[in-house]
Amino acid sequence: MKVSAFAAKGPNQKLEAFSYEMGELGAEQVDVKVINCGICHSDLSMMNNDWGMTTYPIVPGHEIIGEVVAAGNAVKNVKVGDKVGVGWYSSSCMSCHECMDGSHHLCSSVQFTIGGRHGGFADYVRSHWSWAIPLPDGINLDKAGPLLCGGITVFNPILLAGVKATDKVGVIGIGGLGHMALKFLNKWGCEVVAFSSNPSKKESILKMGATKVVDSTKPEELEKIAGTLNFILNTTNVTLDWNSYLVALAPKGKFHNVGAVLEPLAIPAFTLIMGEKSVAGSPLGSPALTRTMLEFCVRHDIYPITEEFPMAKANEALAHLESGKARFRIVLKN
Amino acid sequence: MKVSAFAAKGPNQKLEAFSYEMGELGAEQVDVKVINCGICHSDLSMMNNDWGMTTYPIVPGHEIIGEVVAAGNAVKNVKVGDKVGVGWYSSSCMSCHECMDGSHHLCSSVQFTIGGRHGGFADYVRSHWSWAIPLPDGINLDKAGPLLCGGITVFNPILLAGVKATDKVGVIGIGGLGHMALKFLNKWGCEVVAFSSNPSKKESILKMGATKVVDSTKPEELEKIAGTLNFILNTTNVTLDWNSYLVALAPKGKFHNVGAVLEPLAIPAFTLIMGEKSVAGSPLGSPALTRTMLEFCVRHDIYPITEEFPMAKANEALAHLESGKARFRIVLKN
Repeated sequence: MKVSAFAAKGPNQKLEAFSYEMGELGAEQVDVKVINCGICHSDLSMMNNDWGMTTYPIVPGHEIIGEVVAAGNAVKNVKVGDKVGVGWYSSSCMSCHECMDGSHHLCSSVQFTIGGRHGGFADYVRSHWSWAIPLPDGINLDKAGPLLCGGITVFNPILLAGVKATDKVGVIGIGGLGHMALKFLNKWGCEVVAFSSNPSKKESILKMGATKVVDSTKPEELEKIAGTLNFILNTTNVTLDWNSYLVALAPKGKFHNVGAVLEPLAIPAFTLIMGEKSVAGSPLGSPALTRTMLEFCVRHDIYPITEEFPMAKANEALAHLESGKARFRIVLKN
Repeated sequence: MKVSAFAAKGPNQKLEAFSYEMGELGAEQVDVKVINCGICHSDLSMMNNDWGMTTYPIVPGHEIIGEVVAAGNAVKNVKVGDKVGVGWYSSSCMSCHECMDGSHHLCSSVQFTIGGRHGGFADYVRSHWSWAIPLPDGINLDKAGPLLCGGITVFNPILLAGVKATDKVGVIGIGGLGHMALKFLNKWGCEVVAFSSNPSKKESILKMGATKVVDSTKPEELEKIAGTLNFILNTTNVTLDWNSYLVALAPKGKFHNVGAVLEPLAIPAFTLIMGEKSVAGSPLGSPALTRTMLEFCVRHDIYPITEEFPMAKANEALAHLESGKARFRIVLKN
C-alpha cells in the first residue's frame, strides 16, 4: 500500500508531501486509516533532531485517531472497522518481563511511532495490535487524539504517585499537557494549583479546574505556598529552580517530571532528605492504562481544548504551535 | 543537675572535658543516664560545622542507650528505671500535622539532639519522652546504640520504597549505615548487591548478608548489572556518577539517598522518564517506626558490628572513624 504523508527531510525543515510504500502487513499488525492526528511538542523535537535519535525523512504525528482497515491473521483485541487510537508507541516485544508485567511502555525494544518509522501526518499508519487502543463507545473522536500522548503522559503519574482526592497538587506549565493534567486532577477531587508563566491565561486556567493560579515567574509567589503541596507535576521542558518547587512540596511530597529537560536536574540532597520527598519521571503509559484513561475521559467528559487545522496545513499548524499561541492542543484533520 | 561531658569548642577542634548545668526538668521531659553512645559520621560533620548549623561548644553523641533517671509529671510511655534509646532527634512539637500524623521526624520544629543542645558524649542527656524510645526486652544494650541513628536511617527507606522479599536491591557504601542496611535487606528476603570501593572488605560484606559485592570504582562492573535492581540505597555523602546507578535500576526502580551530599544531585530527566524511575530521600524515622525496627532487630538478632572505646577516649575513637578504619560502628562506653 502506498501512503501519502508529510515529512521533514532534515532538521529545521518544513514538511513536504511525501509518499512511501508500507510493505507487507505483519501477522500481528494493523493498518489504520487516519481520521485525525494531534500535534505534540515532541513532533517538533523529533523533526529538529533535538534528542539525536531522528531518522530522515521523518513523518511526524503520534496522537492518531483512526479506523482499522487491515489486520494480520494473529491480531487480537481489534478488528477491521474498529475505531482506535495510536500514540507515541506502536509496538513492543510482548514477551519481555515488562511486557508480560503489563508495562509494555517500558519494554526495552518498544518502538516509537515516529522513530525509525512513519507517523500519523498521513492517510494511513501501521501499528502492532496491542498499541492500537480500542476507543470506548461515546468518545469524541474530534478531540480524543491528544489523549493518546499528552493525556496518558500526565495521567500515568497521577496513578504512579498514588494521588488521593484529599491531596493538594500543583501542575507546572499549562500548555498541551498541563491543561489536561488540570482536568484530570480536578475530577480526582484534588485542590489544584496551576503554575503558569503567562498570566493572560488565568481565566481559562481556572475554567479548566485549577483552584488557584500561581505566577511561576515570581519567586515570592512560590515561597507563599512553601510546604503545602503533596504532588507537583512538571510538564515543561526547561530548567527550573527545582529546589523552590521541592520546597513548595509538603513533607512526603512527590515531584514528578515528564518534561524532556536536556540539562540534568540539580536536586539538593538535603531538601529531599529533610522533607522525605522524591523526584520521579515516567514515559506515557501502558496500553491497559491508556484504555482505562479513555474510559475515565468519557465518563467525566474530559477532553483537551483543541484547535483544528486541515492536515494539508500542517506547516501552518506547526508554526502556530512554535509561536506559543496554541490554545491548547492542535489537531490535524484528514 | 550538673552534666559531665565532652565538647568541641570550634570547628576542627578536639573534644575537651566540659560540664554544664542541665536546668530544670520540663513536665514532658526525661533525663537519661548514658550507658553508652555510638559515634556517627554526622557527629564529625556537626563538630566541624560542615552544615553551617552548629552552635559551640557542641557535645556530640546521638546514638544513646541509657536509663531514665528522672521524668517530668506529664511524661507518658516511659518511667524512671526504663532502658531507652535516644537518637538524632530529642523533641518535636507533638501537635502539628506531621506529629499528629505519626511523622514526628518531619515536624518543622523537631530538635536535633546535638543541635543547639547537648548530646550523649556525657553522663546524662535530656529528651522529650516521645523520643526516648523504650527498648524491647532482650535487646543487646552494648550494640543497640547505633540503631537509633544509623539503623533507623536505613530502615525507614526500605519501608518507604515498599521493598519486597522478591526484590533485587543494592546498597552503596558499606560503612556504619550500609552494613546495617545489608543486614536488614538480607532478613527482608532480598537479593542484595553491595557497592563498595574497598575490595578488602569483600569477605566481611558477604557475611553481613550481601549476595554479591560490586567494586564501585569500576564503571564496567556497574554496567554489567544495568537494568537489574529494584531499589538502591545510597549511604555515602560524596558525589557519585548518579546516572550510572539510575541505569543499574530496573524499570520502575527506586533510588533512595540518605547521604548528606553537599553538591546537588545531577539527575538526567531522560533516565528517570524512560525507566519510570525515582530518586527519594529521608531523614531517620518516626518514634513508632524506630520502636518497630528495634523489635525487628531483636527478632532477627540484627546488630551493627561494633568496636568499643571508653567514653574518655572519645578523641581516639573519632580519629579512628576519620581514618576510615572503623569496622563498622564505634560505641563509647561510660
